[in-house]
Amino acid sequence: MQDLDDPALRARLQQLLDHKTKPQGALGELERLALRIGLILRSETPRLEQPQMVVFAADHGLAAHGVSAFPSDVTWQMIENFLAGGAAVSVLARQHGLTLTVVDAGVARDIAPRPGLQIRKIAYGTTDCTQAPAMTPAQCEAALHAGAEVVRGLPGNALLIGEMGIGNTSSAALLMARLTGVPLAQCVGRGTGLDEAGVARKLAVLESALQRHADVKEPMAVLAAVGGLEIAMMCGAVLEAAAQNRVIVVDGFIASSAVLVAQALQPRVLQRCVFAHESDESGHARMLAHMGVRGLLQLGLRLGEGSGAALAWPLLESACRILGEMASFADAGVSQSVEGGAA
Amino acid sequence: MQDLDDPALRARLQQLLDHKTKPQGALGELERLALRIGLILRSETPRLEQPQMVVFAADHGLAAHGVSAFPSDVTWQMIENFLAGGAAVSVLARQHGLTLTVVDAGVARDIAPRPGLQIRKIAYGTTDCTQAPAMTPAQCEAALHAGAEVVRGLPGNALLIGEMGIGNTSSAALLMARLTGVPLAQCVGRGTGLDEAGVARKLAVLESALQRHADVKEPMAVLAAVGGLEIAMMCGAVLEAAAQNRVIVVDGFIASSAVLVAQALQPRVLQRCVFAHESDESGHARMLAHMGVRGLLQLGLRLGEGSGAALAWPLLESACRILGEMASFADAGVSQSVEGGAA
Repeated sequence: MQDLDDPALRARLQQLLDHKTKPQGALGELERLALRIGLILRSETPRLEQPQMVVFAADHGLAAHGVSAFPSDVTWQMIENFLAGGAAVSVLARQHGLTLTVVDAGVARDIAPRPGLQIRKIAYGTTDCTQAPAMTPAQCEAALHAGAEVVRGLPGNALLIGEMGIGNTSSAALLMARLTGVPLAQCVGRGTGLDEAGVARKLAVLESALQRHADVKEPMAVLAAVGGLEIAMMCGAVLEAAAQNRVIVVDGFIASSAVLVAQALQPRVLQRCVFAHESDESGHARMLAHMGVRGLLQLGLRLGEGSGAALAWPLLESACRILGEMASFADAGVSQSVEGGAA
Repeated sequence: MQDLDDPALRARLQQLLDHKTKPQGALGELERLALRIGLILRSETPRLEQPQMVVFAADHGLAAHGVSAFPSDVTWQMIENFLAGGAAVSVLARQHGLTLTVVDAGVARDIAPRPGLQIRKIAYGTTDCTQAPAMTPAQCEAALHAGAEVVRGLPGNALLIGEMGIGNTSSAALLMARLTGVPLAQCVGRGTGLDEAGVARKLAVLESALQRHADVKEPMAVLAAVGGLEIAMMCGAVLEAAAQNRVIVVDGFIASSAVLVAQALQPRVLQRCVFAHESDESGHARMLAHMGVRGLLQLGLRLGEGSGAALAWPLLESACRILGEMASFADAGVSQSVEGGAA
């Protein structure tokens, strides 16, 4: 994978930003975002085109242990809601002109085919990973391939990733614990809304899953052992989108866990990622810190679906417009700092 | 001014939000924002209409002391840039369909009339407030009236406020110190980009200004003594917009200082305000905390102009769409939490 940290382009982008009619750095994170998008799209006037919001959905064998506040049926029910336009991600994607695609990566029930839905079902949910690996190596491989195929079939230069899968904060927490070394208790949170007793129960279940796969260390093997089909497919999508130099907008805790696996396989993936937000799920900030990145928004979100990615999207468009449309001091005839103190 | 905290409407809005297809509270700050907008516009399906971005501009006698990294000429030069469409706020207002109006509240130079500019000049800048009150009582009163008139002349139910005025972080810091009791050193920051020596110089100048007006305590008198013409006019605009129950989107440190004065005169103003962001200017977070509010975005912005208000704007639209367009559990046939743990 190409190294996108082109020092000459970086310098030109920084110079462009520094000469826009504002004190240097006064647009804060928006300037860093403009720089990143410029580097990904290799342009001093990057344009985001045909952005694709893809929501990967699957079920989890672990859910039988009551690790979520919601029953597994909610996975397919929410897919119906996504496709009918009534879910948060549907509403926000519509607001921002993001094409929404829902991918059945492994939902425990058959979903009727229709526009906007891609059926890429690898299995009817994962195996309970306290008993056996969640996926066989072949299933995991197939999920990665399917994720890449989804991206190859979609136009545009920006991919926003979200997910749906009752039980998937458990998979994400297990991936995080094993791949980062952060103690499991710091990776496990309330998910969609467990109370304290629920979190304690979830932690005990996940401890036993981690024990069951104590000797599994290699990223692909960890993904197969404790991951989810939607997470594996997202990981494949991220690797493909990164190879194509698309801008990848990463939603919350679970989407970030897919990137955590992807960057363990190919660190340069991170050069293509924009992390949309820091969620309320307790492990998320720590997971981002492990990757050396920060989220754009801090709104206490804990919904998933891609909702945070959609909310952050206008900031990416703003960053491009700052580069493309703002006047420079010279263009506008505005005086610069009197003392160079603005640097 | 009407008390907008209608408990019955609040309960209905909260119930609507709680029955949307998501765990309760999972959209975090966006839900609180939806509740606030619903209360301001007194609707369970609020709609934001014809949003108006108004940038108030003026010059400051204090600027002669070198309290800013930029010369005073930048005030009028940036007005030209706003009107030509090349400034950050111009670009961002265009992106989000916000009508941009620039108001000359007291720029030190005559600006040629043209569409999008309102000339409401009270004086050619304020008096140096280390020597005398920045404004006479009559000027301060006239500025407040003019701000109200600006709002009365604009359509819509949402007002976004921003400002331009070299030296105006100094006025905002002085207003903050006197009206909140926070020590001046904690109110004073780098502005558009002073270095450490510059901040020390600024602090010394502002200490002497505060001493000069040591016995002035009443909000209107404080505004006249150490405020700016753009801040006074913004304060008038905020009071009028609040009286009309418009949603008021407040930009950064200086716009917040206008609200600080307005809410000292009429506390219910705060019920109508959405604070767009917490800026990088060091006193801003403390000023917001004093008013018991938080900003939506934390992007390290320190530009002003209304740029942060414009960046936050899509979140307000999202909040309205969540209320108006998202399906409920019943609508969508989605199962609810199994244990009520999501509350």
